[in-house]
Amino acid sequence: MTAIAPKALDGPVLVIGCGLIGTSVGLALRAHDVDVVVHDALPANVEIAVARGAGRPLDDGLEPYLVVVAVPPTAASTVVAESLARWPAAFVTDVTSVRSGVQRVVELAPGADRFVGGHPMAGSERSGPTAGSAQLFEGRPWAVTPGSPTRPAALDAVVDLALHVGAVPIIMESAAHDRAVALVSHVPQVMSTLTAARLNDAVGNDLALSGPGLRDTTRIAASDSALWLDILGTNADDVRAVLELVRDDLDRVIGALGQDDDAVLGQVLESGRRGTALIPGKHGSQAARVDLVHVQVADQPGELSRLWADTGESGVNIEDFRLDHDLGRPVGLAEIAVALGVGDSLVDALTSRGWTAYR
Amino acid sequence: MTAIAPKALDGPVLVIGCGLIGTSVGLALRAHDVDVVVHDALPANVEIAVARGAGRPLDDGLEPYLVVVAVPPTAASTVVAESLARWPAAFVTDVTSVRSGVQRVVELAPGADRFVGGHPMAGSERSGPTAGSAQLFEGRPWAVTPGSPTRPAALDAVVDLALHVGAVPIIMESAAHDRAVALVSHVPQVMSTLTAARLNDAVGNDLALSGPGLRDTTRIAASDSALWLDILGTNADDVRAVLELVRDDLDRVIGALGQDDDAVLGQVLESGRRGTALIPGKHGSQAARVDLVHVQVADQPGELSRLWADTGESGVNIEDFRLDHDLGRPVGLAEIAVALGVGDSLVDALTSRGWTAYR
Repeated sequence: MTAIAPKALDGPVLVIGCGLIGTSVGLALRAHDVDVVVHDALPANVEIAVARGAGRPLDDGLEPYLVVVAVPPTAASTVVAESLARWPAAFVTDVTSVRSGVQRVVELAPGADRFVGGHPMAGSERSGPTAGSAQLFEGRPWAVTPGSPTRPAALDAVVDLALHVGAVPIIMESAAHDRAVALVSHVPQVMSTLTAARLNDAVGNDLALSGPGLRDTTRIAASDSALWLDILGTNADDVRAVLELVRDDLDRVIGALGQDDDAVLGQVLESGRRGTALIPGKHGSQAARVDLVHVQVADQPGELSRLWADTGESGVNIEDFRLDHDLGRPVGLAEIAVALGVGDSLVDALTSRGWTAYR
Repeated sequence: MTAIAPKALDGPVLVIGCGLIGTSVGLALRAHDVDVVVHDALPANVEIAVARGAGRPLDDGLEPYLVVVAVPPTAASTVVAESLARWPAAFVTDVTSVRSGVQRVVELAPGADRFVGGHPMAGSERSGPTAGSAQLFEGRPWAVTPGSPTRPAALDAVVDLALHVGAVPIIMESAAHDRAVALVSHVPQVMSTLTAARLNDAVGNDLALSGPGLRDTTRIAASDSALWLDILGTNADDVRAVLELVRDDLDRVIGALGQDDDAVLGQVLESGRRGTALIPGKHGSQAARVDLVHVQVADQPGELSRLWADTGESGVNIEDFRLDHDLGRPVGLAEIAVALGVGDSLVDALTSRGWTAYR
């Protein structure tokens, strides 16, 4: 992606669907003084969105510059096609998390050259217009997926929308998008679920041995099943293609376990290590570049705040922070990453303030 | 596990192997004024451990009360058997992370009634005597695995050892231990590896869509391959048994994807959700009990410390904290968990101090 300065978004933007995403788009655009009109099949949702400052209600004479369709996935294609027909001068986009299905339907609709799909990679555990936030998209990727009929001006308008709400627009084809989210989101979700499902076989004290690794790998398995049933169903082919490759590797691991030859297991383990190093962000290569300081934090009010205050006073800059809650004891273990070489001075500073801190 | 008050650990404790674990045992026991003697095949390791205060060097007349064998896994059985023979009045334990192999060998040795194996669930990305810490075991589970010949007094001594170093002793049979760690540690490691391995297939902008879910599920896949080759090899049967059940579920998911019937996928997803709820600690059921506040943190020196100071001054107690580093922008997103109902007041406090904070 490249850094593009947001242009002024022309004319009124009509947001159809005042859920979390639609309301957040309205709030974020209003913060840039864009004229926003909001609409929803439920008048109560419009009322809340308007009251929260996400835009003004729809009137008959409106000629929108851009229509943002933020309705549930099952309704998206229909509402996009209706919008292209009703407002023949408007660009239209949607926010559906799997792209190819919508793209296939809309490409057959009149006005398809004015349509560019999109998928903001942002969400919340809450939903509805009350959960909307002007900052929801800040720093998040926003996939923008033009089709073959798409007019360049339509693509510009949707990239501009993503930039205005603070997101990072990433232009890719629908098919590439769906393959990418299968890889980075849908398959990890299935793998987390499969790992967590086995915990139901635990007996006796088995789970008392749980550590942070188990908690990290299974965190997303706690997500809403109905939502994931939808997502996996809509992106079934791409998810299955990746899962079949996972099964090949799994079969190789199962076959290699207990054999004297370490080559296969070693290959798979190394392939996993290489994979983690490809993930953008501080992950992966970080371990070598920082000192890790561990601090015991009692599980009682005020302890974490007190740790933060004492860490702040130490004058050491914090690169990263994790908190693990331990079993069996009213204590958690904080892991503070600081620049290479300053770990010991943070340990000293915290120890002198009464903390149990160590490298 | 039950809360047991640590008794006074009698007589000298001999630690054989001055690596991370052995040195940490010595340091932790010395903090309770237990007489500790340290030994290692490498005299330089003994020197460092002694200099760090982990104990005194071995002399010929020693009659240890307890011998802690903290040598590499491949040498453990031999050193345990030698120790049982050389010190006929001593209890002996080891710290090997897969239990059944050592147990099988040692049960045939003379003096096996004085042996109780153990596995402290603690580690560090660093190794050797310089990495040792008196706090390494604080709040961590320490599996204690008596065999059929084990004398009750030997079990008491090793439970007492775990309590003295601040760990939570969990008594279980070797076979149960190995099955448990396959479930909560070894299989999650393989699943994380298999997920990360697929990222090598990414093309173009695919990984630009990565989010915190991917980073969490693949974090442990970055671990040392040689270490995991050893662990998986030693616990091959238990790991394979669980992975075969994972493969059954995976086959069901692959078969169900793209079918109109949601029953199978729904079952697997729900099974995963139930599994996460079984993990001890704050994980799983937490989402419903806290307010989550999101704060943008610029990726520059001092920002996290400033956030901590401002959060501390707000007077709101922090339940949990996560930091996600985002791609494409010099900004991270902090997620702060606070008690239900006080999220808005933290948002207000941080906003008034110039932060971009939202629920």
